[in-house]
Amino acid sequence: MLDRTRYPVDPWRLIECRREVGAAPIDETLFAIGNGYLGMRANAADGRRAHEHGTFINGLHETYRIHHAEQAFGFAEVGQEIVSAPDPKVIRLYVDDEPLNAELSEFVEYEQVLDFRSGLLSRRVLWRTPSGKRVRVVTTRMVSFVERHLAVLTFEVELLDAAAPVTISSQLLNRQDAQTEYGRSGSLDPRRALPLEGRVLMPGEYWQDGPFSALSYRVAESGMRVATMVHHELETTAPFELERSIGPDLAKDVFHVRAEPGQPVRLTKFVSVHTSDATPTRELLDRCQRTLQRTVAEGVGTHHARQRDWLVDFWARSDVRIAHDDGLQQAIRWNLFQLAQASARADGLGIPAKGVTGSGYSGHYFWDSEIYALPFLIHTDPRVARNALRMRQAMLPAARRRASQLSEDGALFPWRTINGEEASAYYAAGTAQYHINADITYSLAKYLRATDDLEFLADGALDIAVETARLWRTLGFWRVSEAGESFHIHGVTGPDEYTTVVNDNLYTNVMARFNLRFAAAAIQELREAAPAAYTLAVHRLGLLEEEPAEWCRIADAIHIPFAEHLGVHPQDEHFLEREVWDLANTPPEHRPLLLHFHPLVIYRFQVLKQADVVLALLLQGDQFTLEQKRDDFDYYDPLTTGDSSLSDVVQAIIAAEIGYQQLAVEYFHEAAYLDLADRHGNTVEGVHVASAGGVWMALVQGFAGMRDFHGRLTFDPRLPPAWPSLAFRLGWRGSRLEVRLMQEAFEAELLAGDPVSFDVCGAEVELGAAVVRIPLADQGPRLAGRPSQRRLTRYRREDGTPLTASIPATAPVPMAEVEGLPVDLADPSDGR
Amino acid sequence: MLDRTRYPVDPWRLIECRREVGAAPIDETLFAIGNGYLGMRANAADGRRAHEHGTFINGLHETYRIHHAEQAFGFAEVGQEIVSAPDPKVIRLYVDDEPLNAELSEFVEYEQVLDFRSGLLSRRVLWRTPSGKRVRVVTTRMVSFVERHLAVLTFEVELLDAAAPVTISSQLLNRQDAQTEYGRSGSLDPRRALPLEGRVLMPGEYWQDGPFSALSYRVAESGMRVATMVHHELETTAPFELERSIGPDLAKDVFHVRAEPGQPVRLTKFVSVHTSDATPTRELLDRCQRTLQRTVAEGVGTHHARQRDWLVDFWARSDVRIAHDDGLQQAIRWNLFQLAQASARADGLGIPAKGVTGSGYSGHYFWDSEIYALPFLIHTDPRVARNALRMRQAMLPAARRRASQLSEDGALFPWRTINGEEASAYYAAGTAQYHINADITYSLAKYLRATDDLEFLADGALDIAVETARLWRTLGFWRVSEAGESFHIHGVTGPDEYTTVVNDNLYTNVMARFNLRFAAAAIQELREAAPAAYTLAVHRLGLLEEEPAEWCRIADAIHIPFAEHLGVHPQDEHFLEREVWDLANTPPEHRPLLLHFHPLVIYRFQVLKQADVVLALLLQGDQFTLEQKRDDFDYYDPLTTGDSSLSDVVQAIIAAEIGYQQLAVEYFHEAAYLDLADRHGNTVEGVHVASAGGVWMALVQGFAGMRDFHGRLTFDPRLPPAWPSLAFRLGWRGSRLEVRLMQEAFEAELLAGDPVSFDVCGAEVELGAAVVRIPLADQGPRLAGRPSQRRLTRYRREDGTPLTASIPATAPVPMAEVEGLPVDLADPSDGR
Repeated sequence: MLDRTRYPVDPWRLIECRREVGAAPIDETLFAIGNGYLGMRANAADGRRAHEHGTFINGLHETYRIHHAEQAFGFAEVGQEIVSAPDPKVIRLYVDDEPLNAELSEFVEYEQVLDFRSGLLSRRVLWRTPSGKRVRVVTTRMVSFVERHLAVLTFEVELLDAAAPVTISSQLLNRQDAQTEYGRSGSLDPRRALPLEGRVLMPGEYWQDGPFSALSYRVAESGMRVATMVHHELETTAPFELERSIGPDLAKDVFHVRAEPGQPVRLTKFVSVHTSDATPTRELLDRCQRTLQRTVAEGVGTHHARQRDWLVDFWARSDVRIAHDDGLQQAIRWNLFQLAQASARADGLGIPAKGVTGSGYSGHYFWDSEIYALPFLIHTDPRVARNALRMRQAMLPAARRRASQLSEDGALFPWRTINGEEASAYYAAGTAQYHINADITYSLAKYLRATDDLEFLADGALDIAVETARLWRTLGFWRVSEAGESFHIHGVTGPDEYTTVVNDNLYTNVMARFNLRFAAAAIQELREAAPAAYTLAVHRLGLLEEEPAEWCRIADAIHIPFAEHLGVHPQDEHFLEREVWDLANTPPEHRPLLLHFHPLVIYRFQVLKQADVVLALLLQGDQFTLEQKRDDFDYYDPLTTGDSSLSDVVQAIIAAEIGYQQLAVEYFHEAAYLDLADRHGNTVEGVHVASAGGVWMALVQGFAGMRDFHGRLTFDPRLPPAWPSLAFRLGWRGSRLEVRLMQEAFEAELLAGDPVSFDVCGAEVELGAAVVRIPLADQGPRLAGRPSQRRLTRYRREDGTPLTASIPATAPVPMAEVEGLPVDLADPSDGR
Repeated sequence: MLDRTRYPVDPWRLIECRREVGAAPIDETLFAIGNGYLGMRANAADGRRAHEHGTFINGLHETYRIHHAEQAFGFAEVGQEIVSAPDPKVIRLYVDDEPLNAELSEFVEYEQVLDFRSGLLSRRVLWRTPSGKRVRVVTTRMVSFVERHLAVLTFEVELLDAAAPVTISSQLLNRQDAQTEYGRSGSLDPRRALPLEGRVLMPGEYWQDGPFSALSYRVAESGMRVATMVHHELETTAPFELERSIGPDLAKDVFHVRAEPGQPVRLTKFVSVHTSDATPTRELLDRCQRTLQRTVAEGVGTHHARQRDWLVDFWARSDVRIAHDDGLQQAIRWNLFQLAQASARADGLGIPAKGVTGSGYSGHYFWDSEIYALPFLIHTDPRVARNALRMRQAMLPAARRRASQLSEDGALFPWRTINGEEASAYYAAGTAQYHINADITYSLAKYLRATDDLEFLADGALDIAVETARLWRTLGFWRVSEAGESFHIHGVTGPDEYTTVVNDNLYTNVMARFNLRFAAAAIQELREAAPAAYTLAVHRLGLLEEEPAEWCRIADAIHIPFAEHLGVHPQDEHFLEREVWDLANTPPEHRPLLLHFHPLVIYRFQVLKQADVVLALLLQGDQFTLEQKRDDFDYYDPLTTGDSSLSDVVQAIIAAEIGYQQLAVEYFHEAAYLDLADRHGNTVEGVHVASAGGVWMALVQGFAGMRDFHGRLTFDPRLPPAWPSLAFRLGWRGSRLEVRLMQEAFEAELLAGDPVSFDVCGAEVELGAAVVRIPLADQGPRLAGRPSQRRLTRYRREDGTPLTASIPATAPVPMAEVEGLPVDLADPSDGR
């Protein structure tokens, strides 16, 4: 758990009130700030030792030729890697020429605060210098939600005891190409990004002029451009001198101040960053300068105020309140704040798995975005959700090429990417996850149903639905027997990466079914609602009259594996034939499994990284009965390791729905504290954004029981028995409502927009001006205890064989940690 | 087919009688010479342009860190790559200072001959120099079968028309580290070896002294050592001068001769090569010098005579004679000669997939050795077979470590290796081929039964059988149902690499069954025959009393998939559920499939690279009825692409057994000419040694119907109707017999040793001093026509579904050939 003596409870702020030697790396992530475009890890201003000196710009990446140890046709060819953008965070302080060192200096007082309402990261220290002088240092950092390209840093120094020479050295530093000097380590942590070779940022124009310092670069292979400009202003009553220097990789503004006690010295550093695929760096620098000229004139206070205003609005749309636990409330808000930081100003870029808080997973976009982050955005800020979906629309040409390479029609979206090309070099847990096609269309459908955004559908979003549907038709195949016709999809990997390349994965098939039906329905809707746009789309897509009908025929016939004798849905057609992994007797030092067992071992067992059947029960919940959900959950929960960070939140929601209330709360706690308590051991690499999105899902879909199948909003609440209340706000087709759930009642209030119609526990509700209050007798079923692997003994295979559990015979040899070899994972989404 | 105007028919020699521009690369392989330790490709003596300037020493390899694009636990970490040994073949000729250039010079006469009885490669050319002078050049090369470390080259020049200055520049050249200069190309052919980076051969001592020139090296990462020494002698009546030079990578002996017409100038170059894992190069050079001092003194003639004697003995043991087709006879002998060249002096090293004729497949040892090469060796030169098996015994410690890494007991042999460590970087078609364990034990059993070599069993060969059996026990698992207990092996890849990681692969399971039973039997035999050795083995292996009984219990219960309703054995438990690939409608430009379709596409279809069920019908032929064989062959043959070079020979043997006589002959021809006619398009990379072994199998096991199950020699002949006769010799338990098969009779004659007992068409025969002649009424069943894919329509799946064939929907995009990217295959054994 979170060490509350270091991180005290505060419902609106994450506070670190005591430095602990060696604990800083995780704090770099937990206190990171960003706006979805620009992000800064919480590195100390002195710019010295760090786990990762991260300044990240969403999508700013380098490409490289993927070297496959053994090559085959169609393997991904070009890798993509987020680069470390020029670092403007460095502001070094010297008093009596002695450096302030975040790691080594003596602090009489220390406090670091990330404030979810001000959007500021601030640090206040009282430093006792080697000569015994006390110096108050207060710094703030802000990456603006309002100005996409702006960050503002302040650095205030006050001598408390005696006069002294004070030097403040403010830098702008290219760290990407200075890794060895500045120690971006060659660590073996497998979930870290790959180090790129050779110089990556090729210098463009750089200059200092007046208060401005500017660096700019072309990224060597990808050809992207980045420009960073800083503006300094020093406020002090003391005399000072400015010493400046610049080179291709470093701009320095060094202020030498003859400071007196009680006279604060305050440095303000405005930072502007612009990037582009191809715009010349000179032009980008012009944009930086325009941003700075405008924003500097407005003053720091203005920007701090706007940031606060933006967050007031954000929390008004997004806050989820509980009443009984300020610590948990703090964790919830930290997660929601991360969603804002990961997405707010992505503005048509994707949402990386780590947002802009770290280089983990190479800054790539995965299905995380659609399945875990978008539900929150669709219901709190649909414009941002739409932006994220437009990113997929822009990737369609590449996805069409990829489908063709895989011998399929339509489009196949990449499992991981920045630029639209497949970057997953391990097909078994990458390209074989064809389900991403359905995930994207699913998310698109959710967005469209929640917004009635016909314009987006007409403006090309339809193409996503159509092209993904087309892939399923050729990927699968028909069987016609006396019993009727059925459609099968073989050779795919579901979200659970502990089995790969299987036949008729339940998750994939039910999601493909949705995909096919939605594509047909969307065409029909467009035809009726916007005939002109429909005609254009028919031409653009070469749409044939018979296609939608065929998709529906496939959807109706798609094979949904079900084991009658067990009453459970097999994860795939042959899942139940596997040996059962004896998790109960797998020692903790062998977890997560993927770091201790060869894939060939893991793949042949019934053991899950995340339960994708259970995810299907959530996403396609209207296709399953409550009894089926309970039976499936009972079966899969004991097989689920949770080695994927995407697991807990889904288990929480279905546990709540079927009645395992205590288990649901436990899973929810795991998710809420996943990063804060570093439960997966890799928070240093960045925030688990999908899990943060899942925290919102667990609250709203899990405990408040919200669903929105087929465009109908419904609630079937499951407030945990120990929780007095849960309140949150939702956007729905332009209206906004607040939901307040208590043990004894469900309340809803319309905050804005037209009346909203929804169901509560199956009863229709019309929410107009008046607050609606619906008494609740109970909140769903209650199941005793929890599923356990021992229950598996009650199951038998179809041939009467019991499902006996076994563990691999031999304790495996520890994974060799070879000096200098970056070891990443079987699939880099592992452990996310 | 072979172009007979360039390669005329000759039953004992391969002759090239005409140079064709651009055709030389394949000839480098076809005319390569070697003795299983040292090999030389048939590069022109001028040492100029070549596909590959190959001088190879079995096992001389470099290691390198395998870079996985995405890493996982247990992936192979260290790659192994055969290196190009110092090249002693270069002898350049200048007349009037004009160079003889094999590619560009004008040849009045030209002939290159590889003689299977002399063991010499010779070349005779009549060169017209640019000034119009005719020069006769006769060269020979020999890699000695008698002296493992010796090669002898001769180079004779005679001016026919006029006197001229003649310069002969004889070199010894390190080409490994001169690739760019000498143009080992960066070709994209996927079956070629990977280029190593940086300097590989680190110079040791080098010197010239008297007639000797010497180079020596340490291989940079593997630490191996190699030393090469040459000795020159020039015979001429003309005056000449010698000019010498040496550096770390090149030794030159340049002879300037004032030659007169009709006075031949003859250079003799003795070459000695020694290698070691760790012996200092100085010591290796001493060995080279001892070899040379001894052998040079004996003279060229002596060594040529010994080579011929050795081959007289080889052919006496190994020849297979047919009477009706000298061209086919030539092809047969070329293949048998390749087996000698690949194995004769390996002396405890493995038999690489390409022998010592090319760097294809990186010089690695695969199961080819045990399953395809050893049958020939066991019956013609059991000492060499034993040496090959000792290589596996030496690999046991590494195989034990590998098993532990895969969480299994016992030992797991590497899918591909030189030094015993797994070097396959693609587990799906590498490590997952656990069947190599059974293949090795199978081959060991064959050897032991054919030789009664109890000493080898006692001396540690037992350990192979025991440790491989132990792996099967933990890899598989038990199911106990009312119907009884059964044992299953999941998550394996059979020899057919067009489906991977499947459950209960038939081949794997029947071979594992053999492995388990043989291990138990071998323990019992040792216990009875050599109690002291047995006791030692029990201690050495930590053998438990109950182990053999458990192995037998597993063997009896192992699941052998069989589809009752179809009457065929599925290749794996779920093979029949796959779509059927419509091979008939796959255009030739999409073949081989592995170069035109993503593995995910190929893997989900019923389509085979090689038919491993059919291979099981051969290797475990006593476990299947003739009817089963016919039914299985009928089913699988039309699904078989033959994209593996291991396919044809097996199809030929079973086709012959079940009665498809014409088809058997066609498959046999494919195999016999596989390299000679470059049917797989990659003969340039080296000889397909396994296919060469398969040619012997197809003759002896296919057409003569020889089997040796359980130590009983049997014959059930299938002489093709158009063949008048087939004759060959066999070793059996120390005796040697000749078999002569005709349409009307089977004859056997004991050539040496004790009487031999065997069966012919089920009747027992005792072969003593008298020739045995058994009249044959017919030779097995005759089936009309051949299986065709259209027949598949008669099959239905268990649920009544017809097996409808389909092809991937879209013509795939051609594989991108990216400049500078070495593209190798999904599995490098592909297309072998």
